[in-house]
Amino acid sequence: MSQTHTLAAYLVSNRWADIPDDVRHEARRSLLNYMGCAIGGSPHPAMDIAIRALSPFSGERTASVLGRAERLDPLHASLMNGISSHVEDYDDTTPKNYSHTTSPVASALFAYASANPVRGRDFVEAFILGFESASRCGNTVYPSHYDVGWHMTGTIGVFGAAAAIGKLEGLNTQQMVWALGLAATQSAGLREMFGSMGKAFHPGRSAQNGYAAAMLAKAGFTSGERGIEGPRGFAHVMAASRDLAKVTTRLGVDFDLRENTYKPFPCGIVNHPTIDGAIQIHNEHHLDPASIVAVRLRVAPLVLDLCNQTNITRGLQGKFSVYHGAAVGLVRGKGGLREYTDEAVNDPAIKRIREAATAVGDPTITEDQAHIEVELTDGRRVSKFVEQSLGNIHRPLTDTQLEEKFRDQAVMVLPASDVEALIQLCWRIDQLDDVRDVVMAAVPAAGRTERQAAQA
Amino acid sequence: MSQTHTLAAYLVSNRWADIPDDVRHEARRSLLNYMGCAIGGSPHPAMDIAIRALSPFSGERTASVLGRAERLDPLHASLMNGISSHVEDYDDTTPKNYSHTTSPVASALFAYASANPVRGRDFVEAFILGFESASRCGNTVYPSHYDVGWHMTGTIGVFGAAAAIGKLEGLNTQQMVWALGLAATQSAGLREMFGSMGKAFHPGRSAQNGYAAAMLAKAGFTSGERGIEGPRGFAHVMAASRDLAKVTTRLGVDFDLRENTYKPFPCGIVNHPTIDGAIQIHNEHHLDPASIVAVRLRVAPLVLDLCNQTNITRGLQGKFSVYHGAAVGLVRGKGGLREYTDEAVNDPAIKRIREAATAVGDPTITEDQAHIEVELTDGRRVSKFVEQSLGNIHRPLTDTQLEEKFRDQAVMVLPASDVEALIQLCWRIDQLDDVRDVVMAAVPAAGRTERQAAQA
Repeated sequence: MSQTHTLAAYLVSNRWADIPDDVRHEARRSLLNYMGCAIGGSPHPAMDIAIRALSPFSGERTASVLGRAERLDPLHASLMNGISSHVEDYDDTTPKNYSHTTSPVASALFAYASANPVRGRDFVEAFILGFESASRCGNTVYPSHYDVGWHMTGTIGVFGAAAAIGKLEGLNTQQMVWALGLAATQSAGLREMFGSMGKAFHPGRSAQNGYAAAMLAKAGFTSGERGIEGPRGFAHVMAASRDLAKVTTRLGVDFDLRENTYKPFPCGIVNHPTIDGAIQIHNEHHLDPASIVAVRLRVAPLVLDLCNQTNITRGLQGKFSVYHGAAVGLVRGKGGLREYTDEAVNDPAIKRIREAATAVGDPTITEDQAHIEVELTDGRRVSKFVEQSLGNIHRPLTDTQLEEKFRDQAVMVLPASDVEALIQLCWRIDQLDDVRDVVMAAVPAAGRTERQAAQA
Repeated sequence: MSQTHTLAAYLVSNRWADIPDDVRHEARRSLLNYMGCAIGGSPHPAMDIAIRALSPFSGERTASVLGRAERLDPLHASLMNGISSHVEDYDDTTPKNYSHTTSPVASALFAYASANPVRGRDFVEAFILGFESASRCGNTVYPSHYDVGWHMTGTIGVFGAAAAIGKLEGLNTQQMVWALGLAATQSAGLREMFGSMGKAFHPGRSAQNGYAAAMLAKAGFTSGERGIEGPRGFAHVMAASRDLAKVTTRLGVDFDLRENTYKPFPCGIVNHPTIDGAIQIHNEHHLDPASIVAVRLRVAPLVLDLCNQTNITRGLQGKFSVYHGAAVGLVRGKGGLREYTDEAVNDPAIKRIREAATAVGDPTITEDQAHIEVELTDGRRVSKFVEQSLGNIHRPLTDTQLEEKFRDQAVMVLPASDVEALIQLCWRIDQLDDVRDVVMAAVPAAGRTERQAAQA
């Protein structure tokens, strides 16, 4: 029994009618959330640098980069979409394996659909199948794979991109096996990159590499037949323990996408309950930041493993500092993109609170919880215990909150009226005749082709 | 103490004058051997398929693919050079870590030098530095890294390509740290691909990805500062044990390149003593293949771990069958490219001997040794014990043998007179004003640019 073959056969045989309605709706939510993040991250310096470095190698510029005027070949556009959608650590999280699964899959898909006509329902189906492929590969090796230091968004994303593009390209089962095998052998991405641009590089590269894997496999480039489960394959080489059944159990019945969650704050998800609680204290007590003399956090031990950075000067580093999260919540009552800029990290008021904060890891506190205690100059102490973090599966963002999050990011790049139109396009993406309509609406006017501009 | 930083600083500060003469000569031998393999592998179906699949994504076609008429952008040309030079499993082996280190480094360098003017001495210096970077990263994690299932030619090659291109691009130390970090986070390649085109994809992709890492780093794309040695970096995540000192000990004094070895047979190196011994039996006893009723091999246990394939129908699979190696040696007295085609694998005489062969793993036999016993229809038995395999560090191929190996491959693609000229160019590559002269001589006339054709 080969997991790779079973998964491949499922991907090839699935039809749109096989996708349950609730999964379709969660796909639309995921894609709306993704699109906002891709546009919000598109002006990031990492994008300017990556485009400057690699644009000279671009092939025919048939694909838009979401949020940008530049066009690139679809492989390079996949890379750039992946960087922009993840660079602010604002995208989504699959609770079963703590991966950010939409970015690598949707980044390849939007690049593909920018350069090729794709019906909306085919696009959404390919997204759902890619998402499930990636997430199931993740479930199979989680947590040992993550614990040793792999960044799963990169390591599993490549499977999702290969599956999604392979589906749109009409691969047969043998070709899909090869596409998954070529994905497996490109699986990469180290947590050592956290706090640098290298982290956002992971979903981008996995989008690009999965896309290429599908094109190679379609042309007949062979891989091992058991890329996922073979004795020298992904699950054995890249994890100390594994449950291979998770690749294929209840395929087409259970969908991880149903449980996808969307970040209310653009940083590592383990910081979210702390920020959430700090904002609640801000809103309830209207504290003058100058009156705060100490901040004491009790958090899940993993938080200190991941987000214990204290001496920070760059916005990206702030995303890996639970202390910074507490500080922006208390000082600004917000934790949006503007709280994770270089400017915010170096804001003296935020810096002072951040440096006044301490944290202890408490095994009785889950990763959805945090306890925040603030000590004031007058000796008073105020505190808040967050039992379920905003945005988690028990307190999901509503469709309206997702729209607000989208707007907050997209208006930095697009005119407000275009933003509203794009929101509506995302909600009915599976009804569109050509997904290029979405891509066209997601780039500045200067990035639209003549054909697209004429249609607009 | 950061190994990544120390290595980066060494790469940046090294000068041509710092390279000892014997290392320069071994570099020329390695590059000659590489070039023969790249040309010899260039007509392989894997190349046709990869070029067909990815050429539509190529950027400006400024770089030649060695041995081919097609031109691609330098990143795609790096990939193709890596595939062709490794697809026949005929290239070289670094005995300290059993990697095939030249392919990923030289594949990026020849693509770069095809598109950019590069002096010969700068090219050879960059090659040597890239080779050492890759090999030292390999030494650090060998053998646990290999044992779990990583294909080191892919996983370490990306460091070598990044270092080599980074050197030619004049990166400073910070940029080189990032280039190595972006290499680390792209390190990939599974042994599950052995016996498929996916194996040769590894040095190609690592050449391409290392090249891109250098370009990104130069433009300011950041990575973690400790990509090699950090707690979530390459050496910790991708190996159960490691010796980090091997990255930097006696940098610039000890060179693994001095010990590089060149394959006399186009297949997994652990098969070499068996083929060598079978050829000796063929030459000494002039056996009629029809008279052979049984072949009994005693080999190092690793041989059966790697090359135990029996039921084979494709040339690529033959490379992973010690039985096929014995059969071609006994039947044809040769083990060249023509003994590893689909035709050879399905040759009835070879197939019969292959299926009459058995092997036992014997821990007293080293990986350079093999014992072959042949039983004949008349009841006679002849045998041979190979104590040191041809081509290993104790029986290295001479310069003349390397030229013969080169010729045997290159004449399949280039006119014989061009082959001789190319051999001479490779021997004096470090004296050339522009390495494009080598690249020009390494492609069919149809692949030369007008400028190049005018010079020729």
